[in-house]
Amino acid sequence: MATLGLIEYKDASPEVRAVYDDIMATRKTDWINNFWKALAHDPVTLRRTWESLKEIMTEGALDRLTKELIYVAVSVTNQCNYCIASHTAGARKAGMTDAMLAELIAVVGMANETNSLAGAYQVEVDQQFKA
Amino acid sequence: MATLGLIEYKDASPEVRAVYDDIMATRKTDWINNFWKALAHDPVTLRRTWESLKEIMTEGALDRLTKELIYVAVSVTNQCNYCIASHTAGARKAGMTDAMLAELIAVVGMANETNSLAGAYQVEVDQQFKA
Amino acid sequence: MATLGLIEYKDASPEVRAVYDDIMATRKTDWINNFWKALAHDPVTLRRTWESLKEIMTEGALDRLTKELIYVAVSVTNQCNYCIASHTAGARKAGMTDAMLAELIAVVGMANETNSLAGAYQVEVDQQFKA
Amino acid sequence: MATLGLIEYKDASPEVRAVYDDIMATRKTDWINNFWKALAHDPVTLRRTWESLKEIMTEGALDRLTKELIYVAVSVTNQCNYCIASHTAGARKAGMTDAMLAELIAVVGMANETNSLAGAYQVEVDQQFKA
Amino acid sequence: MATLGLIEYKDASPEVRAVYDDIMATRKTDWINNFWKALAHDPVTLRRTWESLKEIMTEGALDRLTKELIYVAVSVTNQCNYCIASHTAGARKAGMTDAMLAELIAVVGMANETNSLAGAYQVEVDQQFKA
Amino acid sequence: MATLGLIEYKDASPEVRAVYDDIMATRKTDWINNFWKALAHDPVTLRRTWESLKEIMTEGALDRLTKELIYVAVSVTNQCNYCIASHTAGARKAGMTDAMLAELIAVVGMANETNSLAGAYQVEVDQQFKA
Repeated sequence: MATLGLIEYKDASPEVRAVYDDIMATRKTDWINNFWKALAHDPVTLRRTWESLKEIMTEGALDRLTKELIYVAVSVTNQCNYCIASHTAGARKAGMTDAMLAELIAVVGMANETNSLAGAYQVEVDQQFKA
Repeated sequence: MATLGLIEYKDASPEVRAVYDDIMATRKTDWINNFWKALAHDPVTLRRTWESLKEIMTEGALDRLTKELIYVAVSVTNQCNYCIASHTAGARKAGMTDAMLAELIAVVGMANETNSLAGAYQVEVDQQFKA
Repeated sequence: MATLGLIEYKDASPEVRAVYDDIMATRKTDWINNFWKALAHDPVTLRRTWESLKEIMTEGALDRLTKELIYVAVSVTNQCNYCIASHTAGARKAGMTDAMLAELIAVVGMANETNSLAGAYQVEVDQQFKA
Repeated sequence: MATLGLIEYKDASPEVRAVYDDIMATRKTDWINNFWKALAHDPVTLRRTWESLKEIMTEGALDRLTKELIYVAVSVTNQCNYCIASHTAGARKAGMTDAMLAELIAVVGMANETNSLAGAYQVEVDQQFKA
Repeated sequence: MATLGLIEYKDASPEVRAVYDDIMATRKTDWINNFWKALAHDPVTLRRTWESLKEIMTEGALDRLTKELIYVAVSVTNQCNYCIASHTAGARKAGMTDAMLAELIAVVGMANETNSLAGAYQVEVDQQFKA
Repeated sequence: MATLGLIEYKDASPEVRAVYDDIMATRKTDWINNFWKALAHDPVTLRRTWESLKEIMTEGALDRLTKELIYVAVSVTNQCNYCIASHTAGARKAGMTDAMLAELIAVVGMANETNSLAGAYQVEVDQQFKA
């Protein structure tokens, strides 16, 4: 059960509904996922988080799919199950295939392995990487 | 200082040299970065890690640049300074611009933030994400 | 299911019961939460952990509420669901309101975000902070 | 060395200077710490991060000192050296004494210990904590 | 539910079956645990991961039991529930008693505590440890 | 520089000296490593941490060497450089050879890799592991 429960659209205040409406309009969907319904207990954080996410995940120097792949990579590394589920769905919507997902996971696994190898051997950064 | 020191090419055994040679040939460079020189204390791990990395980081369903971006994302999340430095360099070599790096970092920061929000609110996975 | 199961009061050895009794007396409750019942498989660790916790969480330069808030912040960052649940309850008992919880979570989310930004940009510590 | 270097006030664009000015005015200081000078390579992230931080760290249901203590707790758990240094300084400015810092650290250490104990024993959340 | 579902032996391709057969032969069991059935969606990663694991977990300078204990320690620190369950089982098979498990968990808890204390106090590495 | 500086023996209070003396007597050394000199700013935590460590790291169902190897494994996973250095030294003193260290690091790397694979594929715990 969510720490403070979930706030459904019909029970939401006008300011929360405004965010919900913008989420659905932006994503072209007719439902709100639980993350936002939990955050709605704190309307200020709800708005700020949504505005930030919208700004950051927009097509830019990196496309939407690449950004979602990066989001999944971080979520896996943090063992955040909700985020793995929601951003895997987001990545699929942005075009991720099963083959891409499999390669993404392989890279994340390898990165976590070599991150600990580098730490264990206390490897110093090469001069070439500092240039 | 690295835990066990670094093994230079001139001091390396034939089996270690063989891996070094393959790294330089594959990457079309004439030097070996410290990570491999540290790992060379364990030739079996050196070979397995290099073979795995070569297999995983090859162009596939995801291109090389995307894979390097994912690698940086994991390394930042794990606060692995060596890996941030080496894979930022790797990503640049694969075509990452400063604008891409800035967006990558913004996504990683946002993902780390919402990962903790989702955990704090103990958000349950939506049925829609389980389909 | 807990790794080694839970040890209930009626099945506990005298030394485990002594710790259980002290927990209930100190907390002015009539039940023991699962954490201690799991730890009871190792009576030495049970006692040491309880004694340490009692000593650390006492009112001191920081009050009980502040200490519980800090405990929740760490538990969220580690994605430890049991600890989030138990210390959120502990914080409420010490006076945490819903508004405080919401602000706590917002700070934890922000800290996790800027922690990764600082790592990604490899920011060096300012001289002013070393004074 | 910071990944992309630091942008000093004299070299900053008008939009970056505007953020720097607001940081100094809000904090009543005459200098900018390195975190912001690194972030300035991405003026959009610089502005959003500063605006978010200003909003979140304001006196609210929790006072400024408590918020800084929470920030340090997260930074320690993530082993983010820059953040430990900068937010320890921030906490001192908000009134943290050496005795408070020592107790904060003790709580953070204990929380990290019991977080892993709870995970290792796979402790299930008590019904009482779900109420 | 696993991200991509589980692939049972009867539904597996010949190359996946070959890995399954080797896992059962090596472990002298007649079943495959879910980890491999999930990984089977990516036969290349399945094979590489199994070959690596087989090579690494072999009796060597460290015996099988010690290696499984180390595996559990990492899994607890990462709060990976699946890995705690599977490698606790693996460690038991290699000879771990309840008393050993209890001591392992106590060491892991202590290490996580002192890791954060060392970070919080920003302790510098002693010259004696660099020799 | 350590957050609060280091307290040398000659400047220490009698209660801190008592702990220092016990550390040197227990370890049969004539020096104190920086970790304890930093902790000495909080004599209560200094004593409790030392007493806990002494109790936990004693020869028991697991021998001293195995416990130190586990300590290194956790420290690597947490990217705690001080702890990697100090417990690698501790493990060597307890008998760890270079070959053991190399195998330890390989296991830690592999565990970090498969921990993220298990998370990414959201693998469910097998019934067999719950027995």
